[in-house]
Amino acid sequence: ISDMAFGIRELAKKLAQIRIRLNVHNVFILAKAHDETLISHTRETTEWLLTKNSNYRVYVESTLENNKIFNAEGLLTMNPSFRGRLKFWTNKLCAEKPQTFDIVLALGGDGTVLYASWLFQRVVPPVLAFSLGSLGFLTKFDYDLYPTTLSRAFDEGITVSLRLRFEATIMRSQNNRNTTLDLVEELIGEESEDNHTHKPEGTHNILNEVVVDRGPNPTMSSIELFGDDEHFTTVQADGICVSTPTGSTAYNLAAGGALCHPDNPVILVTAICAHTLSFRPIILPDTIVLRAGVPYDARTSSWASFDGRERVELRPGDYVTISASRFPFPSVLPLDRRSKDWIDSISRTLQWNSRQRQKSFKEWS
Amino acid sequence: ISDMAFGIRELAKKLAQIRIRLNVHNVFILAKAHDETLISHTRETTEWLLTKNSNYRVYVESTLENNKIFNAEGLLTMNPSFRGRLKFWTNKLCAEKPQTFDIVLALGGDGTVLYASWLFQRVVPPVLAFSLGSLGFLTKFDYDLYPTTLSRAFDEGITVSLRLRFEATIMRSQNNRNTTLDLVEELIGEESEDNHTHKPEGTHNILNEVVVDRGPNPTMSSIELFGDDEHFTTVQADGICVSTPTGSTAYNLAAGGALCHPDNPVILVTAICAHTLSFRPIILPDTIVLRAGVPYDARTSSWASFDGRERVELRPGDYVTISASRFPFPSVLPLDRRSKDWIDSISRTLQWNSRQRQKSFKEWS
Amino acid sequence: ISDMAFGIRELAKKLAQIRIRLNVHNVFILAKAHDETLISHTRETTEWLLTKNSNYRVYVESTLENNKIFNAEGLLTMNPSFRGRLKFWTNKLCAEKPQTFDIVLALGGDGTVLYASWLFQRVVPPVLAFSLGSLGFLTKFDYDLYPTTLSRAFDEGITVSLRLRFEATIMRSQNNRNTTLDLVEELIGEESEDNHTHKPEGTHNILNEVVVDRGPNPTMSSIELFGDDEHFTTVQADGICVSTPTGSTAYNLAAGGALCHPDNPVILVTAICAHTLSFRPIILPDTIVLRAGVPYDARTSSWASFDGRERVELRPGDYVTISASRFPFPSVLPLDRRSKDWIDSISRTLQWNSRQRQKSFKEWS
Amino acid sequence: ISDMAFGIRELAKKLAQIRIRLNVHNVFILAKAHDETLISHTRETTEWLLTKNSNYRVYVESTLENNKIFNAEGLLTMNPSFRGRLKFWTNKLCAEKPQTFDIVLALGGDGTVLYASWLFQRVVPPVLAFSLGSLGFLTKFDYDLYPTTLSRAFDEGITVSLRLRFEATIMRSQNNRNTTLDLVEELIGEESEDNHTHKPEGTHNILNEVVVDRGPNPTMSSIELFGDDEHFTTVQADGICVSTPTGSTAYNLAAGGALCHPDNPVILVTAICAHTLSFRPIILPDTIVLRAGVPYDARTSSWASFDGRERVELRPGDYVTISASRFPFPSVLPLDRRSKDWIDSISRTLQWNSRQRQKSFKEWS
Repeated sequence: ISDMAFGIRELAKKLAQIRIRLNVHNVFILAKAHDETLISHTRETTEWLLTKNSNYRVYVESTLENNKIFNAEGLLTMNPSFRGRLKFWTNKLCAEKPQTFDIVLALGGDGTVLYASWLFQRVVPPVLAFSLGSLGFLTKFDYDLYPTTLSRAFDEGITVSLRLRFEATIMRSQNNRNTTLDLVEELIGEESEDNHTHKPEGTHNILNEVVVDRGPNPTMSSIELFGDDEHFTTVQADGICVSTPTGSTAYNLAAGGALCHPDNPVILVTAICAHTLSFRPIILPDTIVLRAGVPYDARTSSWASFDGRERVELRPGDYVTISASRFPFPSVLPLDRRSKDWIDSISRTLQWNSRQRQKSFKEWS
Repeated sequence: ISDMAFGIRELAKKLAQIRIRLNVHNVFILAKAHDETLISHTRETTEWLLTKNSNYRVYVESTLENNKIFNAEGLLTMNPSFRGRLKFWTNKLCAEKPQTFDIVLALGGDGTVLYASWLFQRVVPPVLAFSLGSLGFLTKFDYDLYPTTLSRAFDEGITVSLRLRFEATIMRSQNNRNTTLDLVEELIGEESEDNHTHKPEGTHNILNEVVVDRGPNPTMSSIELFGDDEHFTTVQADGICVSTPTGSTAYNLAAGGALCHPDNPVILVTAICAHTLSFRPIILPDTIVLRAGVPYDARTSSWASFDGRERVELRPGDYVTISASRFPFPSVLPLDRRSKDWIDSISRTLQWNSRQRQKSFKEWS
Repeated sequence: ISDMAFGIRELAKKLAQIRIRLNVHNVFILAKAHDETLISHTRETTEWLLTKNSNYRVYVESTLENNKIFNAEGLLTMNPSFRGRLKFWTNKLCAEKPQTFDIVLALGGDGTVLYASWLFQRVVPPVLAFSLGSLGFLTKFDYDLYPTTLSRAFDEGITVSLRLRFEATIMRSQNNRNTTLDLVEELIGEESEDNHTHKPEGTHNILNEVVVDRGPNPTMSSIELFGDDEHFTTVQADGICVSTPTGSTAYNLAAGGALCHPDNPVILVTAICAHTLSFRPIILPDTIVLRAGVPYDARTSSWASFDGRERVELRPGDYVTISASRFPFPSVLPLDRRSKDWIDSISRTLQWNSRQRQKSFKEWS
Repeated sequence: ISDMAFGIRELAKKLAQIRIRLNVHNVFILAKAHDETLISHTRETTEWLLTKNSNYRVYVESTLENNKIFNAEGLLTMNPSFRGRLKFWTNKLCAEKPQTFDIVLALGGDGTVLYASWLFQRVVPPVLAFSLGSLGFLTKFDYDLYPTTLSRAFDEGITVSLRLRFEATIMRSQNNRNTTLDLVEELIGEESEDNHTHKPEGTHNILNEVVVDRGPNPTMSSIELFGDDEHFTTVQADGICVSTPTGSTAYNLAAGGALCHPDNPVILVTAICAHTLSFRPIILPDTIVLRAGVPYDARTSSWASFDGRERVELRPGDYVTISASRFPFPSVLPLDRRSKDWIDSISRTLQWNSRQRQKSFKEWS
């Protein structure tokens, strides 16, 4: 069995970086539509793509259809072959026909990549992210080199890292906030087979983290944390951050969590300002199903947020389930990607382990 | 590919807990031979096993052969069938013929289980660990119930968790401590193909952690950290702790690292008293090969230790490689083992997230 | 000068614990008026005081005047001498004539003592706090022993610790949120002599902490921190906690600050979930004047709160000044008070440095 | 009494920065005598002083008397008036006649200033520290400007900050390591009046910190901590760091302690790698007397070190007392010293609260 374990490890290692050949027809471009610079870049990239290969169709955001800077009409008049190949995407199209797109080109910063994750709630096309400024955790390509990058990607194929996403579902108590009820009993007690106590209300696939916190509430939250069918602990804190490895450098960092390489199949659970001395962040396998809820006798609601958006009130008795999503996020890596890539990111972006070099301060000993 | 990833995840989940049927012939008993209580328990368990099934052979430590409390001679005279079935193990036998043993019974605390890991440096038989006091992270069975536990284990089979071990090898510089040399250049520079710069000297399979620290040295250490073929960072600290998930509750905890579920395939890297504000513990995949070394221009040596033992001096230019071992540690789990088991361990043993419940202290707001 | 320094140190030491003889006429009783148990205790203590000495006047909260459980009418009919000596206090009386009261008896928990601090915004009478449950950081006396405690206090005098309070004032920008302005320039730049840029709006004397945070806002805050006439740093975080030593065991603890003995004349500045790896809590002298403000170009407001109450919006350009108050909080200490008192509080209430004693886990080395 | 407290505060504030007029006769120069550059600077400064005023006597380290680079003979032949005014100091002279010197000029880094503290174990002359590289926590003056700096200092006077030092004394048990004894009982039990149990052995005045740790010992230490006549706690850790505010940026930082402004009259107690989740650094008044000792039943010794030097073994039963010294360290401040000075030091030297400014990463919300 040791050998089998070793084999699985090798498989997992390969899976962390899959090489894919692309047969590109439909290219999706994502950029913040309110930023003039980005609109110009979108226009430039679109023209480049339409010119490069007459089989390519390019989808840009529908708000650009009548945008003066983008000037779709001008683009179409440049070359008769462009007509019919310049298309406009809507959120609805992303939700309903994500398989339409062979690749997503994201232009901007890490926030744009998070937005791509939000747009594609189920299947996500491979996302190749260009940075307009310094490279980030998710934006691995320099926009200035886009012609070379895209030519190589379309010709030679791409390397994709499947980043863990969470599927998070809000579960509403059907019990009218009866403060004599016990959430722990309802979820894992003997009577818990009966699933009529809660109803699902909205599912989110998230790339960074789910936060349950006190929201606008001045007092701390009391949050019941469950794993699979067990009650783990009661967290007395400003909140709790349940983070993917990708999210470890975002809010998890601020809450005091460890920095976690994105290839690790783990869930990071960190309290936000725990009102205790003995909370230490924990790292759980991504095969576990977590539930975080508000006790029935809580005096206030808590709030759940998903990748920093979509803040939703959790009233006493409500909870949110968090588990590994069946729909990971395929992030395109540079072809010459190295182990050090992530260490470089945390060193450069977060100044991890940096210190002014001093002359030794024990010079007299 | 998402589906494939999902499949791998499921496989990995199953692998985390393998059910094995045992065909028991040779039982290995491990207990601290200098503790009178433990010798009595060893004697009691040995007698119970020899009596229970005439096919069982029981191996106890060779120092017990002439121990008065154990009284081997008395045991053999109790029943003629015992003769030839009571055997004595030596460290050499463990090293050379580990496959001899169908199961190891450890009696004591977590330290005894660490000792089992030390004894079996390559293949490790399944280890079923009885606690004499309160249950620990590795001692999952109450000794008082040993007859029931063993009967069920031998009849119904056992569930085994394969705990990650590291293989750590000391690499000695062959360059006579030439302080003008650059360790980074030697290990990952263009000339690094030539492997004549360092020679291996001793390999250790460890279950908890490898520590490289300043040892008896009063000043801090400077440690170069490499991952695969890259230079990660230079750590200015009292030392560095590279821990398995199993070791996350040992020295890693003291150094400020996160608590990590033992099923996670990760490496925890934590500085010990970093002389910088910006070191944060990092979590790496267990597919990476780490190297931690002493720069040639260091004014002092550092010391490497393996599971808290075997402290070895690393002189300038030396380093230690750390990677996932091909020989994991099969730890026997209770049959009714639950997700919560680990959370219970950290709550009970470390008082994780415990606090005296207070009346709310915002009573006037 | 060393000797002078030593003398000052001695003086400060004495000041930390002042012995006062009381000439008691007017006793103020403070208890949560919505809790039936506390009303009974208030009634009991009032009767005991009125009976004990015909010179005592007892002030209870005006809401008790017609409270059935307190039954003021019944009390007055018990003894004709009580009439004229049972009085009722209002918030207004506390604000305008705090010198009226020779001593405040607080019944409840630490929250009640915080409330006393809130009621007496300027001069505070000595506060003797009875705990109804386990002793807290501020409730040093067991209510069950109140007759003995009060008799001794009134006869032999009391020992008072003068706890540092902060005076915090909100300063409103008069510049109509002009985002081209620079707060740093306004506060410490060359033009900063002109004090027309900001106007004060409300001052609070607080015992625990001033928090400036993102409030209901989902994104982090950017807070400019000034000390005396210098710009210290820009904090990118969920917020900032500026705590007295008394408050070090409250929100400061949750934010990761050190625990600070209440006698220290210091200000504790701790970021709340700093979005950086290199923020470490700092300890400043209480002679410094701090200012924490929202930059003019901030996209959102921040919120200031005072002892967890009175949340106030700080719009871009606004700031709050924080400095040692001229009105400390005289907390009555047990007569046999010892150095260990505070260590006992943190050990008992926060389980500081507690761990299940283990058998040594290096038993094999 | 509030007013008195306020007065004391004002006094303390003034004391933090005392203005002194110097009547300079004897100048003491301290620099590392093994560094050629520093010897040249010492020579240069000596010549400048001897030339500047014929009343000045300059003391340099006695090892320079025959040093070729310093070339004392050459110096004396430059000007006949120099003879008799160039003097050589020894450690003995510092220990016995510290009042001889009107001012100490330190050339080097913070380590040189620590060395000055070590040389002057009782009264310390004002120390004006020049940095040869970037300014440090204790080296406040740029060497390149020494003529201006010294001229102003000698003419206009200096501002001195009296930095807290600790007096630490090793107390040896006279009980021959009887493991049945109880250190807690001996130090604070009923029999503790009898002071024959321990004898003092060596006192150190230290500027940064006293560390008691496991030294070369591979297992953790168990340290009993006492404050005044109380037992505070038992620390299970690699060690304990008791730091002055000055030392808060040295080893205390590495152990996880808060950064503390040097004017604060406090003692910082921080565990080094505590083997518990619930240790949090504590800040105590400098009026307390601490004792840290090794229990009689400890299996190993611990080691005490003083400002990183003078490591001394503490055998079971031994302890070290730590209290505010009567001999503070007078550090000369720049005349235009500002509150921000310390914040600048921690920002520049430790990169406190620094982070690469990012474009906001919530750009899509």
